[in-house]
Amino acid sequence: MIHKLTSEERATQLSQLSGWQAVTGRDAIHRQFKFADFNEAFGFMTRVAIKAQEMNHHPEWFNVYHTVDITLTTHDAQGVTERDIALAHFIEDVAKRTRG
Amino acid sequence: MIHKLTSEERATQLSQLSGWQAVTGRDAIHRQFKFADFNEAFGFMTRVAIKAQEMNHHPEWFNVYHTVDITLTTHDAQGVTERDIALAHFIEDVAKRTRG
Repeated sequence: MIHKLTSEERATQLSQLSGWQAVTGRDAIHRQFKFADFNEAFGFMTRVAIKAQEMNHHPEWFNVYHTVDITLTTHDAQGVTERDIALAHFIEDVAKRTRG
Repeated sequence: MIHKLTSEERATQLSQLSGWQAVTGRDAIHRQFKFADFNEAFGFMTRVAIKAQEMNHHPEWFNVYHTVDITLTTHDAQGVTERDIALAHFIEDVAKRTRG
């Protein structure tokens, strides 16, 4: 069973993930990304999708045109775990490269 | 300027789109799709994304694991147009083929 982060652990991890915030009323983290257009946004999503499948850890996400809203949580642990933090760091890296 | 469908036109078109419904409080249409897993769901989304880009008409959509929620509306016309109906028919076809 994967370990759910304590509030302190989560806060420490979030301090290293610029733009990510705890979701109100849920043990989850969220960030919104804006890209130049749909092509960039969906290219970004595709890279994240392949990584998510590899990790067997999938995001909750919403897309409209150039905007992507991503929420991460670990359903098995009913909260944020190291898996979410790892995926968030991957997502940050891909977003930065996508936007150039 | 693309023509916004009247309520009657929209109802007629929706009657031919099983599972699609008018969204409450918005001039938009919605359907939820369930696939076997994330692989199927994201493969479906990829086909829809390519078509949407070709049409220059993009969905609002939410995905978590095997579920995809799609809302269609035409922002330029502030309502449902023939573009939404055309994209919905394409989406239905791809969903059926994806699920086999």
